[in-house]
Amino acid sequence: MSHLDQMLRSHPQKPQVDETVLRNCIDACLDCLSSCSACSDACLAEEDVQPLVRCIRLNQDCADVCGITARILSRKSSADWAMVRSMLETCAMACQECGQECGHHADHHEHCRFCAQACGACEQACNDLIVEVPAALP
Amino acid sequence: MSHLDQMLRSHPQKPQVDETVLRNCIDACLDCLSSCSACSDACLAEEDVQPLVRCIRLNQDCADVCGITARILSRKSSADWAMVRSMLETCAMACQECGQECGHHADHHEHCRFCAQACGACEQACNDLIVEVPAALP
Amino acid sequence: MSHLDQMLRSHPQKPQVDETVLRNCIDACLDCLSSCSACSDACLAEEDVQPLVRCIRLNQDCADVCGITARILSRKSSADWAMVRSMLETCAMACQECGQECGHHADHHEHCRFCAQACGACEQACNDLIVEVPAALP
Amino acid sequence: MSHLDQMLRSHPQKPQVDETVLRNCIDACLDCLSSCSACSDACLAEEDVQPLVRCIRLNQDCADVCGITARILSRKSSADWAMVRSMLETCAMACQECGQECGHHADHHEHCRFCAQACGACEQACNDLIVEVPAALP
Repeated sequence: MSHLDQMLRSHPQKPQVDETVLRNCIDACLDCLSSCSACSDACLAEEDVQPLVRCIRLNQDCADVCGITARILSRKSSADWAMVRSMLETCAMACQECGQECGHHADHHEHCRFCAQACGACEQACNDLIVEVPAALP
Repeated sequence: MSHLDQMLRSHPQKPQVDETVLRNCIDACLDCLSSCSACSDACLAEEDVQPLVRCIRLNQDCADVCGITARILSRKSSADWAMVRSMLETCAMACQECGQECGHHADHHEHCRFCAQACGACEQACNDLIVEVPAALP
Repeated sequence: MSHLDQMLRSHPQKPQVDETVLRNCIDACLDCLSSCSACSDACLAEEDVQPLVRCIRLNQDCADVCGITARILSRKSSADWAMVRSMLETCAMACQECGQECGHHADHHEHCRFCAQACGACEQACNDLIVEVPAALP
Repeated sequence: MSHLDQMLRSHPQKPQVDETVLRNCIDACLDCLSSCSACSDACLAEEDVQPLVRCIRLNQDCADVCGITARILSRKSSADWAMVRSMLETCAMACQECGQECGHHADHHEHCRFCAQACGACEQACNDLIVEVPAALP
């Protein structure tokens, strides 16, 4: 149902990075945004919230960072790839930290297990795109 | 690849609205967020930007509204469905206005044509969810 | 230190609503955005989180809605005042609900007391601007 | 009118970085968020948009990055200062690039001149806070 492929292909400028890697990263960021928002909320709805406090905190940072990364990457004519790379590095760090914390609760809470997967996939997708960036730098 | 289904199903609370309708709406909002961000950027990269100024403006509002609607809907334990309904109505309005403007440029710019589709799908998904909300109200 | 006044006055279009009311509303939304983000975090850092779960949830919605309302209002050439009004109504609702919940904890937690004030000020500023909108409608 | 000072002081945890430097940075990020949103819109309302295309693009990235940085910094109990530092570096880069581009149009457009000031102040505030971060790292 996603229109992302079509949107990227119909852009008037020639792509500056591999479009499949770019699209995968936007997809993964959007998935991680909704997963982390949902996980934060699911944690808050658990009977015993206290052990999940750090998870909720990191979920919020990670959702924020992933959401903005997706927006920045969707503007593919970006003139400032050095900043984009720094944003991708920040996003990979947020995903790693959040995914690790979610992983600690994976045995007790299914939502943490799924969220850890979403974070891991997004971290990987960011790192895959970081490799592509140098070619786009001036 | 999306973890949204699993995230919603693993939430500790019983769903307050139909989960398929909810998930479709979150998906459509995220698709419309990236489509509008990409369309705004593609418009700015066109040779003749002037006729697209209103499209770029509405793309920005629509991207913002859809992104925040997706976040709010991902927190499904929401205690305030009256606010959620108002947000959905706002989102449907933003999508309608932006989709209509994109539609005017659909013959000249493929990205506007695809973006109009994303806006139309999101408007529909919001309206489908609005119908579900009353049951969740206190 | 804020540049908002200067930014609004240097816009090439004639204002469509009273600029002081508009600026006050953007200011109040930004203040409520940071207050709700901070309150959500302060609640999570309290020794007994459980009674604050609803507060944290509403803080997140309110921060999201206020942040996006500020962005939309900063784009003052907006062509779609019906949508802006709907966004302002949504924002006033989110502020009312969040401010009310924060108020319940005002005696125990100073941050909830201050956050309730920020929410109340933002709700008022939104309602003040809603009164101005009709003149801008086509 | 801002409640930010009170919010930061009423947080149950002891501050991990200098609170004045932290507050200044959040303030500067929020000011830059609204300035860049307003500048992007003012540029789109100019008679001759074409020379401002890059400015509009960078305004969008900068507004996004500043807005999310303010949110992350408002959650001062952050457990992940390495990520916060990376976010601050990204924000300083976005502000530098956007401020430089706005500066090129400062003689022709007052809004670009004011926005360049907001970007410069935010870049400085981020760099001031980056200096404070090491003490907070584990």
